[in-house]
Amino acid sequence: GTDGYSVEASEPAPGDDRLLWIDICGLRDHARIAEVAASCGLSDLAIADLFHVDQRAHTDSDGDLVLTVLRMPVAGPPFEADQITLVLGAGFVLTIREGPRDCLGSVRKRLAGGTGRIRTSSGYLFYALIDAIVDTYFPILERYGDLVEGLEQRILASPGDDAMRDIHLLKRELLDIRHALWPMREALAALQRDDTPQIDEPVLPFLRDCSDHAFQLLDMVEVYRETAQGLVDLQLSSLSNRMNEVMKMLTMIATIFIPMTFIAGLYGMNFDRASPYNLPELGWRFGYLYAIGLMVVSASTMLFVFWRLGWIFGKKRRSRADD
Amino acid sequence: GTDGYSVEASEPAPGDDRLLWIDICGLRDHARIAEVAASCGLSDLAIADLFHVDQRAHTDSDGDLVLTVLRMPVAGPPFEADQITLVLGAGFVLTIREGPRDCLGSVRKRLAGGTGRIRTSSGYLFYALIDAIVDTYFPILERYGDLVEGLEQRILASPGDDAMRDIHLLKRELLDIRHALWPMREALAALQRDDTPQIDEPVLPFLRDCSDHAFQLLDMVEVYRETAQGLVDLQLSSLSNRMNEVMKMLTMIATIFIPMTFIAGLYGMNFDRASPYNLPELGWRFGYLYAIGLMVVSASTMLFVFWRLGWIFGKKRRSRADD
Amino acid sequence: GTDGYSVEASEPAPGDDRLLWIDICGLRDHARIAEVAASCGLSDLAIADLFHVDQRAHTDSDGDLVLTVLRMPVAGPPFEADQITLVLGAGFVLTIREGPRDCLGSVRKRLAGGTGRIRTSSGYLFYALIDAIVDTYFPILERYGDLVEGLEQRILASPGDDAMRDIHLLKRELLDIRHALWPMREALAALQRDDTPQIDEPVLPFLRDCSDHAFQLLDMVEVYRETAQGLVDLQLSSLSNRMNEVMKMLTMIATIFIPMTFIAGLYGMNFDRASPYNLPELGWRFGYLYAIGLMVVSASTMLFVFWRLGWIFGKKRRSRADD
Amino acid sequence: GTDGYSVEASEPAPGDDRLLWIDICGLRDHARIAEVAASCGLSDLAIADLFHVDQRAHTDSDGDLVLTVLRMPVAGPPFEADQITLVLGAGFVLTIREGPRDCLGSVRKRLAGGTGRIRTSSGYLFYALIDAIVDTYFPILERYGDLVEGLEQRILASPGDDAMRDIHLLKRELLDIRHALWPMREALAALQRDDTPQIDEPVLPFLRDCSDHAFQLLDMVEVYRETAQGLVDLQLSSLSNRMNEVMKMLTMIATIFIPMTFIAGLYGMNFDRASPYNLPELGWRFGYLYAIGLMVVSASTMLFVFWRLGWIFGKKRRSRADD
Amino acid sequence: GTDGYSVEASEPAPGDDRLLWIDICGLRDHARIAEVAASCGLSDLAIADLFHVDQRAHTDSDGDLVLTVLRMPVAGPPFEADQITLVLGAGFVLTIREGPRDCLGSVRKRLAGGTGRIRTSSGYLFYALIDAIVDTYFPILERYGDLVEGLEQRILASPGDDAMRDIHLLKRELLDIRHALWPMREALAALQRDDTPQIDEPVLPFLRDCSDHAFQLLDMVEVYRETAQGLVDLQLSSLSNRMNEVMKMLTMIATIFIPMTFIAGLYGMNFDRASPYNLPELGWRFGYLYAIGLMVVSASTMLFVFWRLGWIFGKKRRSRADD
Repeated sequence: GTDGYSVEASEPAPGDDRLLWIDICGLRDHARIAEVAASCGLSDLAIADLFHVDQRAHTDSDGDLVLTVLRMPVAGPPFEADQITLVLGAGFVLTIREGPRDCLGSVRKRLAGGTGRIRTSSGYLFYALIDAIVDTYFPILERYGDLVEGLEQRILASPGDDAMRDIHLLKRELLDIRHALWPMREALAALQRDDTPQIDEPVLPFLRDCSDHAFQLLDMVEVYRETAQGLVDLQLSSLSNRMNEVMKMLTMIATIFIPMTFIAGLYGMNFDRASPYNLPELGWRFGYLYAIGLMVVSASTMLFVFWRLGWIFGKKRRSRADD
Repeated sequence: GTDGYSVEASEPAPGDDRLLWIDICGLRDHARIAEVAASCGLSDLAIADLFHVDQRAHTDSDGDLVLTVLRMPVAGPPFEADQITLVLGAGFVLTIREGPRDCLGSVRKRLAGGTGRIRTSSGYLFYALIDAIVDTYFPILERYGDLVEGLEQRILASPGDDAMRDIHLLKRELLDIRHALWPMREALAALQRDDTPQIDEPVLPFLRDCSDHAFQLLDMVEVYRETAQGLVDLQLSSLSNRMNEVMKMLTMIATIFIPMTFIAGLYGMNFDRASPYNLPELGWRFGYLYAIGLMVVSASTMLFVFWRLGWIFGKKRRSRADD
Repeated sequence: GTDGYSVEASEPAPGDDRLLWIDICGLRDHARIAEVAASCGLSDLAIADLFHVDQRAHTDSDGDLVLTVLRMPVAGPPFEADQITLVLGAGFVLTIREGPRDCLGSVRKRLAGGTGRIRTSSGYLFYALIDAIVDTYFPILERYGDLVEGLEQRILASPGDDAMRDIHLLKRELLDIRHALWPMREALAALQRDDTPQIDEPVLPFLRDCSDHAFQLLDMVEVYRETAQGLVDLQLSSLSNRMNEVMKMLTMIATIFIPMTFIAGLYGMNFDRASPYNLPELGWRFGYLYAIGLMVVSASTMLFVFWRLGWIFGKKRRSRADD
Repeated sequence: GTDGYSVEASEPAPGDDRLLWIDICGLRDHARIAEVAASCGLSDLAIADLFHVDQRAHTDSDGDLVLTVLRMPVAGPPFEADQITLVLGAGFVLTIREGPRDCLGSVRKRLAGGTGRIRTSSGYLFYALIDAIVDTYFPILERYGDLVEGLEQRILASPGDDAMRDIHLLKRELLDIRHALWPMREALAALQRDDTPQIDEPVLPFLRDCSDHAFQLLDMVEVYRETAQGLVDLQLSSLSNRMNEVMKMLTMIATIFIPMTFIAGLYGMNFDRASPYNLPELGWRFGYLYAIGLMVVSASTMLFVFWRLGWIFGKKRRSRADD
Repeated sequence: GTDGYSVEASEPAPGDDRLLWIDICGLRDHARIAEVAASCGLSDLAIADLFHVDQRAHTDSDGDLVLTVLRMPVAGPPFEADQITLVLGAGFVLTIREGPRDCLGSVRKRLAGGTGRIRTSSGYLFYALIDAIVDTYFPILERYGDLVEGLEQRILASPGDDAMRDIHLLKRELLDIRHALWPMREALAALQRDDTPQIDEPVLPFLRDCSDHAFQLLDMVEVYRETAQGLVDLQLSSLSNRMNEVMKMLTMIATIFIPMTFIAGLYGMNFDRASPYNLPELGWRFGYLYAIGLMVVSASTMLFVFWRLGWIFGKKRRSRADD
């Protein structure tokens, strides 16, 4: 496959000539893909749907075939996922992927190296592919968990930092992942119901295990989403806090100096001191010291008020988080 | 049909004289519409309902007929939708539209040009019309997705910009779309249940495909709605941020200049310098420079404090979004 | 019925002596109401419940009777609703209303004027009464829709206006309406189930239609409620915005004048100009102009900064809403 | 029963020797309670559970017995509820209450005075006790409704008042009530299902009525909770509003006086008037009036701006709430 | 078991040689654990899953075995939980724990000391282990309840305190607990369904009791979570309140002193008093007192305005919380 567009069939193992995995990569060559799909027995409607990317994950029966559409993650944060359509037929599995990146390397290795069920049972191969796709979400989600954790640390450490932008982008990506995972539950459940006789009995416990993983992934996404939403409150409160600090600073400086400046202004007035009632303080021997004294008293009063309000020299309450 | 009010029947194809699509456009001519509907076999109750616009999407059985009411989008943002009632009978499909605009051009083209199932099976024609309606939502929703994206870019780029009004209007329109789509799910599901024998078996996979599309549309709307709601937080936090900036500016200027102004005021006092205790600084040889020095010290102290608080000359933290 | 308390029975039509609508208005005369209800066949428990106002809407079977309790709207905004109990028996319908106001005029008119099903089938009369009650919600809700719309226009037009009080009252009334409508769904669904054989088959499509209306009403309430909730965000953001404007005004004035006032204060100091180092500017020929110049430079710098920050002479961004 | 710990059995009515209500009050005397319970036929597991207070409301079958655990309200706001376990057996009802307070006075009175079903049917007595418990919630909830209403009036009347603390405490208590009521629904529904043959058929309509009441209580709690949550928005917006008022006041005073003070400072400078370019205004005949004039112009301009911004002399918009 | 890794089997009681509890602690020794598990009859898939920690709680049937995975709390706040896998077979219970800490001491004691069902029925032993795990959540949750209560007291007592950080951390841990408990419901319900014949009939009431406990735990978590979310509002409002206080202080000081400073500045101007129109007040006999009088009037006016606005000398409204 050059340019990421290829149709490859797994080489059948010597003594096991019936199991075939046909892997189509890239959706550009409509005609050829339709031809392969038709030769596998897909109906026209199903073939037409192959070329719609951005489908919801779902499972359909198409005659004797079972067709499951999933979103296969191809890159960690930022999250990217390609569509993959898996078709299970008698003795073969057909996969049609949107692009060249995939996460099926482990299955290829097991097919190449091993013997065992994966080479003999198409149902098991079908499961193994789905399992590889589902499990790819785990490391990606863990990286998102680290991002949430890091963002939380950052907000707690430097509260005034503008983390809102990053919270928002994180929430959006988690929303995308959730919408990739949510319908997957139903797609996997449909495979375990009676209406898909193509899945043979021994594969069911494996699919159930796979469903459990999907549920666990959804749980993880929900926890991260709720934590990220909690970070919004934390950030808004930290912005308010910071504003409080700024305002307190302004208020303290202004409140201390405004009365002092007033006193200075008072004794800067030019009333005619010929009258003994006009600004007699200016003629006092210790007038200047008296004025300075007034200022000190005014400033001290203010500082005392601020201390009583707990704005300065406050004992910081120890929070549980510091333990 | 002049003035957008018309009753048109599709011309039956030569060799296929039984399939008829009767398309009524505009609800003004009550008598004539009732007559046509009655001749198709609709009950009085169903006919009366035809003239109620703003119905919820739903599917009803009316004797031998199946009647589906949908909201057909006729304009992108701002979203507008007309009501369409589709009636499926033996050998005919009746559609009653609220206004002249529709999105059924593709079906008309297929009917005119092609042969195939759409000319022979009324169930398939019924499906094709519903499918055309459902698929019309996709480009409209994509345009809303672009609007959400654009709004997000705009808020992230110029945080103080008042985008709240646009967020609100966007949220309202997405709410309207959601309420147009939500009952559609149920209306489509009802068509696939046993109680509608008028839908023949081969059409069911197509309707299932159509249901999948409706679910996907709802998913898209939900993602856009949650993203838009996230933009509210982003906007509120950006407003807070901006206020912080404004306050910091005021606080810095005031905090630097208020003490300096106080010092200037202090040496503007008019105490009688006959007393050696009154304002001796005024007589110093370098008194002015001393006063200037005091001011420089005061301002430098404040600037140092602001630098330590990280208000000025701060190293900007690189966010993931800048990568 | 004087004082709004009355027991009235509809006059049976000449040739149709079996259908009777007994309408009791007002709950004060316990004894007489109990007598009438008992003569209709209601059990003691059901009779006792008649006098409990503020019941949830529900449907009960009471022997051969079907009993539906609904909240009947009697006044538009502000929303007021009375309780009505409808009892369907063989050949009669009994309604017990809380007060004199009702919305059943249309049914009375049809009974008085017409012939047809409403005079012969008690089930149809029962439906007609319920339908009249349900449909009364539509004009009331439309008026609430207008209120929501008006409030939105008002907030968008004059953002600083304190609309929160009105938003709150509107949300409360919509909550009341929702709680009147929500259990109605179930009450109507119960009438369509097998356990109410008193409802004859031909009435079922009518009741289904009525249920559709109830769902549509709930949809409308939800849209209004969500929109009203969105108005809360809009209002909070508009308050923040307004505060920003106020602060910007203060900051600009203060930031421009505080340095200028400082310069004025500087040259108002009284240092002894005998020393050539003390305030030499005061002796300059163009000292005053120099001081004015300093002030102009300082103010211009600030204005430049504000212009760069986009606080003044800003090009207003055109929003989609202005289109 | 002294100290609120007692085991009392209702005296059997003369001609009706089989119905017994055993009422145990207080859980301290483990041995004796276990003995009585065992003699009634309770299993060891059920007896052990009797002593766990704070159980969720639920209904269990225990052999031939039906056992319902409920939370019985014993005090209005602040809400307090004790656990009560009701056991229905053949011919007897056993109640075990956590403390001495109860709300079963009405049942005692009916037992003492009346004859009728309550003395002959253990199922009916069982219902009567549950009904008394459920109905005790109504007056309590109404008092909470009054509290919500009062809080709303208070916030609307004096917006700056700090009502948040009371809103929070109210929300917490409503949450407690909701969690007492929510599982009660299921406990009551279980009594009406087939798996409790101990409840005889004629009692079922009464229990259904009781269930309706429980649903109505939950509706009331939800309305109060949503209204209380709405009060949070109202309060936050009113705090913002108040801050706006404070800031506007500061801004207006500062903005009017800062330029005036600057002008005064300007003409307080001491430039050497030997130069004709230095402060020539000081020598003008009407210099003082000119300065005053400048100040009046500056203040008027500011007042005009504030008037244009609607900050002063504003026509108050009439809100619907004032009608 | 050294280093916390051990495989221990309970010693069979003398006369009861069939019941065995095999307790594996620590997952490091893969080979040995797999060997033990295989000898108990676990399938390969189930054995592979034993080594995946962080599984969701669930119940699986594995041939004749029942396998339940739970999260076992091992430390109070901060919450820590280890995974435990319980396998019930004919005559034995196998437990595989993630680490050395457990909460099964009470079961060990009962096994060591007692006789009775726990030594004879593997189903009962299985229940007893699950019950011990579920009940361990109660004291932990009560401690979280105390933390919520303490945080609430602290915010109500000193509103400006920055409690947001602690609220956030508390909410996160409650979220973790909720996600440990939520799937447990389903895991316990699965044990009571028909598809697990390994659980014998007499154990079912015990498991039902255990399920009730799990529901009650979830109720508690929800109440704590909602209360903690309410604390966010309380904290945000208290931050706003505090800002209001700061701003009011600044506004009052500034508003009182700015006009006074202006008057002082006015009479500090240097207009040439040769003109009788220039600052005649300066020559008045009581000019200084007149100026002081002006200042007193201005300050009094402002104080009066503040008193009317309720900013100072305000009667504090008594809130319900102070009763």
